[in-house]
Amino acid sequence: MKKIINRTDQVVEQMVEGIVKSHPDLIERIPNTRVIARTDKGPGKVGLVSGGGSGHEPAHAGYVGRGMLSAAVCGDVFTSPTPDQIHEGIKAANQGKGVLLIVKNYTGDVMNFDMAKELAEMDDIEVDQIIIDDDISVEDSTFTTGRRGVAGTVLVHKIVGAAAEAGASLQELKALGEKVVKSIKTIGVALTPCTVPEVGHPGFELGPDEIELGIGIHGEPGFSREKIMPSKDLAKQLFDRINKEHHFISGDKVVVLVNGMGGTPLMEQYIFANDVHELLGAAHVDVEKTIVGDYMTSLEMAGLSLTILKLEDERWVDMLNIPVQTIAWK
Amino acid sequence: MKKIINRTDQVVEQMVEGIVKSHPDLIERIPNTRVIARTDKGPGKVGLVSGGGSGHEPAHAGYVGRGMLSAAVCGDVFTSPTPDQIHEGIKAANQGKGVLLIVKNYTGDVMNFDMAKELAEMDDIEVDQIIIDDDISVEDSTFTTGRRGVAGTVLVHKIVGAAAEAGASLQELKALGEKVVKSIKTIGVALTPCTVPEVGHPGFELGPDEIELGIGIHGEPGFSREKIMPSKDLAKQLFDRINKEHHFISGDKVVVLVNGMGGTPLMEQYIFANDVHELLGAAHVDVEKTIVGDYMTSLEMAGLSLTILKLEDERWVDMLNIPVQTIAWK
Repeated sequence: MKKIINRTDQVVEQMVEGIVKSHPDLIERIPNTRVIARTDKGPGKVGLVSGGGSGHEPAHAGYVGRGMLSAAVCGDVFTSPTPDQIHEGIKAANQGKGVLLIVKNYTGDVMNFDMAKELAEMDDIEVDQIIIDDDISVEDSTFTTGRRGVAGTVLVHKIVGAAAEAGASLQELKALGEKVVKSIKTIGVALTPCTVPEVGHPGFELGPDEIELGIGIHGEPGFSREKIMPSKDLAKQLFDRINKEHHFISGDKVVVLVNGMGGTPLMEQYIFANDVHELLGAAHVDVEKTIVGDYMTSLEMAGLSLTILKLEDERWVDMLNIPVQTIAWK
Repeated sequence: MKKIINRTDQVVEQMVEGIVKSHPDLIERIPNTRVIARTDKGPGKVGLVSGGGSGHEPAHAGYVGRGMLSAAVCGDVFTSPTPDQIHEGIKAANQGKGVLLIVKNYTGDVMNFDMAKELAEMDDIEVDQIIIDDDISVEDSTFTTGRRGVAGTVLVHKIVGAAAEAGASLQELKALGEKVVKSIKTIGVALTPCTVPEVGHPGFELGPDEIELGIGIHGEPGFSREKIMPSKDLAKQLFDRINKEHHFISGDKVVVLVNGMGGTPLMEQYIFANDVHELLGAAHVDVEKTIVGDYMTSLEMAGLSLTILKLEDERWVDMLNIPVQTIAWK
């Protein structure tokens, strides 16, 4: 294992320190926790808390700041944060108007965020949650009942974050978030595996010309292993699966997120984005916004995911476009 | 070779299309060229043109937009753009106040940008240039006489871009750029090589526990092959070399850029950034700003570079902090 780290049992601790020291204007660490919180607290607004296992950077700490998350809770690599840590995140986010938890659908995360919600309610903090399950690849995967939560989570952070900043109530934010989640479909592909530092070897193996369609962001199995294929064929396969969910008709409006998994050059992401635009154009679907880059990674995995948000409400694009003060949202 | 591409001879063409289709609000392609230009032309301002071989994305197209570059010229992968293409970039950038070329120090780039300058002068466009040679690793490398231009180029784009936006003259921008370049020192390390699509195999080889110190962004040789070492030891080696150039004394003020080469997880970049902060703290040097992420890549190479800008003028930090409208500068 060749990684720029010090000790395998300190990667998250030292990463959190590095993030906080690098961006003291935007974020701070709640002392003795793995919680990264906004320095600009957003008084009078509903707090937004997300998090999960580390290894998906810039998710979620990169989305903490004015206009997006109030706090992110950093678990061990690919491991849910504990309820007490999430509880600290809720306390940091609370400005008296309640806190919304944005949780990716993994059994450990759902359970621990739920327990943290109960702990916070004992402090008289009003807490609600939304569960993100945008990955259409498989049902009931490793660590998951139902569908997994993946890159589409970032769009939820941004849209709900814009509404929270504008003063929406906890109930309004939950309803908005759930509507957005239903409109987001994602599917991924891996070209290489990745290595969790504490494990020391790749989580799975792929042959020199093999790719895995439907991969999860922790290397959970997808639905098919195939030979590497041209980008446009790959785009078509992923798009067709998403289309089976969205049932696009002429004139539909969408937002596209091409998300690099960590080890994929932007060159390949943009070539793929070009092919996705061709497919959407042929289907007479209007792309209102395209986002390309590493937004929800899986350590050094090579691969990408395609997320398409079908716009049930055109204001969602404005909410995606409003500038924020975070490390990673561009 | 496992890449998300269509044809090896069309990677740059399709990447440029993908970039332009993804960000039509910010940039446009000059028809029949490989030039990506601002949609907001910046009338009455000096134009800024950069570019070079592709494969370093988001450099340079990601830095085109209000407050940074006027145009970027995209060569083939790791290959200088031709003079006629650069000439087109200059024409696109020209708003009647002259055009400054920001050129990384590689023999091909320097020659071709120089020829393009002559072509543009025949059109009566006033053109001047600055050469970036921030890489302190080696002298007279492959493709280079003197020192190479690497990640520090992005800081020049941003600082000079802020001054151009504020209305500085061509002469003022050249003087500013040259002063900034002298204050930037960079050094890189590779953990893995990368593969140019048209070549089809890695540009060099590294053993499973080997790293190369002083690597160039096209895989040019560095100064030492060593075994993988802890991040803090790596940080010390790179920092010590930079310190031999900058001769830091207590109270010096700096900007730090930890730049991922393409295949390095942000987790590792932030662990390394934490170690760099420790070293600067021990040297009583004040870090005024830290930038972490993939700013000047080398396709899928795993590795990173450390850039330290010594602040000869504290306004440079303000110029780095002014918001811009580009794809990639955060």
